[in-house]
Amino acid sequence: MAQRGSRARRAPAPRTGALRKRPAAVRSTAKKAPRAAKKAGAPRKADAVELGAKQRDISVSEFFAKNRHLLGFDNPSKALLTTVKEGVDNALDACEEAGIIPEIRVEITQLGETRFKIAIEDNGPGIVKKQVPKIFARLLYGSKFHRLRQSRGQQGIGISAAGMNGLLTTGKPVHIITRTGKKKDAHHFGLEIDTRVNEPRVKLDETVDWHRDHGTRVEIELEGNYRGGQHSVDAYIRQISLANPHAEITYVPPKAEAHGAEHVFPRVTTELPPETAEIKPHPYGVELGELMQMFRDTKARNVRTCLQGDFSRVSARTAKQICVAARVPETRRPSEATRDEAERIHKVIQKTKIMSPPMDCIAPIGEDLIVRALKAEVQADFYAAVTRRPTVYRGNPFLVEAGLAYGGDMAMEEPITLYRYANRVPLQYQQGACAITRAAIGTKWKTYKLQQPRGALPVGPMLLMVHIASVWVPFTSESKEAIANYPEILKEVRFALQECGRRVATYIRKQARVADEAKKRAYIEKYIPQVAVGLQEILGLADRERDKIVKNLTDVLERSRKM
Amino acid sequence: MAQRGSRARRAPAPRTGALRKRPAAVRSTAKKAPRAAKKAGAPRKADAVELGAKQRDISVSEFFAKNRHLLGFDNPSKALLTTVKEGVDNALDACEEAGIIPEIRVEITQLGETRFKIAIEDNGPGIVKKQVPKIFARLLYGSKFHRLRQSRGQQGIGISAAGMNGLLTTGKPVHIITRTGKKKDAHHFGLEIDTRVNEPRVKLDETVDWHRDHGTRVEIELEGNYRGGQHSVDAYIRQISLANPHAEITYVPPKAEAHGAEHVFPRVTTELPPETAEIKPHPYGVELGELMQMFRDTKARNVRTCLQGDFSRVSARTAKQICVAARVPETRRPSEATRDEAERIHKVIQKTKIMSPPMDCIAPIGEDLIVRALKAEVQADFYAAVTRRPTVYRGNPFLVEAGLAYGGDMAMEEPITLYRYANRVPLQYQQGACAITRAAIGTKWKTYKLQQPRGALPVGPMLLMVHIASVWVPFTSESKEAIANYPEILKEVRFALQECGRRVATYIRKQARVADEAKKRAYIEKYIPQVAVGLQEILGLADRERDKIVKNLTDVLERSRKM
Repeated sequence: MAQRGSRARRAPAPRTGALRKRPAAVRSTAKKAPRAAKKAGAPRKADAVELGAKQRDISVSEFFAKNRHLLGFDNPSKALLTTVKEGVDNALDACEEAGIIPEIRVEITQLGETRFKIAIEDNGPGIVKKQVPKIFARLLYGSKFHRLRQSRGQQGIGISAAGMNGLLTTGKPVHIITRTGKKKDAHHFGLEIDTRVNEPRVKLDETVDWHRDHGTRVEIELEGNYRGGQHSVDAYIRQISLANPHAEITYVPPKAEAHGAEHVFPRVTTELPPETAEIKPHPYGVELGELMQMFRDTKARNVRTCLQGDFSRVSARTAKQICVAARVPETRRPSEATRDEAERIHKVIQKTKIMSPPMDCIAPIGEDLIVRALKAEVQADFYAAVTRRPTVYRGNPFLVEAGLAYGGDMAMEEPITLYRYANRVPLQYQQGACAITRAAIGTKWKTYKLQQPRGALPVGPMLLMVHIASVWVPFTSESKEAIANYPEILKEVRFALQECGRRVATYIRKQARVADEAKKRAYIEKYIPQVAVGLQEILGLADRERDKIVKNLTDVLERSRKM
Repeated sequence: MAQRGSRARRAPAPRTGALRKRPAAVRSTAKKAPRAAKKAGAPRKADAVELGAKQRDISVSEFFAKNRHLLGFDNPSKALLTTVKEGVDNALDACEEAGIIPEIRVEITQLGETRFKIAIEDNGPGIVKKQVPKIFARLLYGSKFHRLRQSRGQQGIGISAAGMNGLLTTGKPVHIITRTGKKKDAHHFGLEIDTRVNEPRVKLDETVDWHRDHGTRVEIELEGNYRGGQHSVDAYIRQISLANPHAEITYVPPKAEAHGAEHVFPRVTTELPPETAEIKPHPYGVELGELMQMFRDTKARNVRTCLQGDFSRVSARTAKQICVAARVPETRRPSEATRDEAERIHKVIQKTKIMSPPMDCIAPIGEDLIVRALKAEVQADFYAAVTRRPTVYRGNPFLVEAGLAYGGDMAMEEPITLYRYANRVPLQYQQGACAITRAAIGTKWKTYKLQQPRGALPVGPMLLMVHIASVWVPFTSESKEAIANYPEILKEVRFALQECGRRVATYIRKQARVADEAKKRAYIEKYIPQVAVGLQEILGLADRERDKIVKNLTDVLERSRKM
């Protein structure tokens, strides 16, 4: 940023004052304008009509089909990862909403050099037949967008987009098997999205035998590329299991059949995350336009009951108080409130003291589980975790927690490893654009005994994980790879990291002290025999007595250590 | 990236091989799973149904209203800039499509501490009455998305999104005045977008008197913040006029009325950019899924005529040849072609030699105009510009040009200033994420006599501008702030920058040589009198003769310089 700033400062004539007219030499050429303008011709009468005729609707699926990189399908390797992510997100959400401890199975089968089949299977509640087509083959359709509730998915795009990407690259439909209970049939669907109209085309619809009593299996075939490293599916699976210690994840990488290598990530706990409540919008976070929309849509009879009923934390008293202060009769029909009245109410709300939103809408992973998960993830000498109390940005409750593992076999001279999470989903791309990274770089790690190059992550044998849980995570793109730099979020992350920093600093200092004392001790020990020999000569002692002295002095050294 | 890479490498156990089972200590806890699972309860029968009931459509306007930061409305200052940009983009596109030399007027009026009114007025062809509401108050509606044609707008989102942002922050509708010709009425609309359904609400519709024969004026009121610097509207206006030397732009910044300060950016040329042709998709850029879609939609009778008619550069011969090689009867009805046949055709296309797309669909600014515009923009000692020949990425023709100004009053010790453009629109945000920046950093500027810190832009008194023109610019987000890192694009930008580099290097070397000679010369001159005096003494010359010698020697020095 600093650099940008400096660039801005020295950019030629960057401010109004400096908006000088073109030098005469250049301006002169402008004189020709009129004549030339004629030459170029006044508008042909048809134009506006012609242009009008070209105007048409763009379906959201056409838009995202053409802009698939916005959804995380930039290239074959990323497409593979994104497809897995979207499937697993939905599986975990479904299980938790139904109060089921998740068992997820992820299979990647390589069909050709660049052709893969991805299957994600869960033990969730299953999906009612008539909803399946729209859920898997219609963009902007889902249950999570209109609620303020912590969940992995929130857009209603992901899994349908993954299916669409599969269709566009291989022409193959998405396959779904789903069953809602022992006594119900399992249904098998083959679905394609009709991108021109964003509607599902059902290519196959049959009942089948299935080994599960309830759950869902999605299969998507796509052009992909399977590779290792920071952005690999393997890294993703490890990171997701780290942040979802209640889930058992079975991962079958490509060609695994050959080696029969199935990787099982057992659960670290059998407790589901506490169920999170859905909340109403908090008045502080509502914009004027939204407020007016709510007044149009509300079922409430009058403005007061609307404020009281449709918002979080607005008591009858507060509602009344707001109406009075805004000089709006509390009996006014919301739909009849004028723009000015709404604006007055909006202004008053910002000035009124309103309790911050209830926090049972957010479920942290928890310090204990973070540490246990970290221990399962990496061998280190020191572990710590911090879960902050929830707070609010733009009326949305959110919470930050951080964990770290230090030492062990991690490299001394490399930048630390940073794992970023949003609602328990690992973020693997766009690290540079993410609020978490920014906060981590902004933290003064030197005060915590870690080296840190200017404007970079600290250097040392450390794995750092940061988790942001919220009813609405502000991502910087539909592909949900980075969190927007809201000041409130930056602040909370920084606080969490500072606490982690203090703890690791204490550990590092202690280690230093211990090492230091060991050195002294070795030093003294080395001289004890000489001292003894010296005394023997001065006092003319027998060897037996000399040895006794050595023993005594060593004991003294021992005891002094003990204290 | 290198850093990332290194992090990836040392991240604990990042590859499949390393996906070790959890240590026993941890796994043991998993044994409890079954019991606990029961405790947590098998799915309540209602679940799938409950969840199903919650599923619903999300309108694209609801989606973008909630995710406005994706469209460039992250914060008040950016919202102000984005609103101006979207208005000016449309104005310029409209004028050029109608063959009118653009006269654009941009007015920003401050109504309150954080309240602004933005007006953009053009002399374009105007808009036919019945199109106005959808164009300004419906997302994903427009004339540019479905065509492969170079234009500033391409999504059908921008101006409606700006209006929506205004509505949501101020509750005020968008106002439009438009007129399609002298003999036509001017219409005045007041429009609101109904975000729940993405449909316009017409609040006002009247005919008015208007001073223009044809053109359009848009007025949007919004919560904003006006500031200077790299991201300011002022910087934007200067940059857009730099890349659109055929446009006359009048800019009235806030409070200008007070100082009566209206900034006019006269045109540097009166030639419109060459009109660009719309093209059909090139076979190389078409994915299997798209191909199948085209087969479904085509009006062509058989596969051969479809290939020949619906694609760019496919002759009857090539079409026939493709069918044969793909073992698909050329008489096959496209709609009846199977997925496998389509896939065979798709594979064959990639192997068939097909002429690259026609290039009259792209209009560069041109080297001459870039230099003239740069001269108008900044006082420097050296100017250069390079326009590359068009080429192709994913079947989309594109072209890169670069210009630079060196020396003058620009700072020596700061990073250079980089102006990025896509289809003549300046890109002011997300410099780090942009292919242009990446190519500029990737260029070895040291070989061109400029200092360059590792992994950063070069340092020196230089303004560098890079323009990418294409029928489809792959932006990294809807806000169109950065260009995606397609290898073909990176390569072309690098070539353009290398050529610029060579030119500026030549200049810098010449400057060095001149300075060097001047030094030598001054040195020699200093001694000429002494030499003369010496000769005078030795040869016993008269002062007149001595002075003559001084003159001769000086002349010799002069002449030797000349050669």
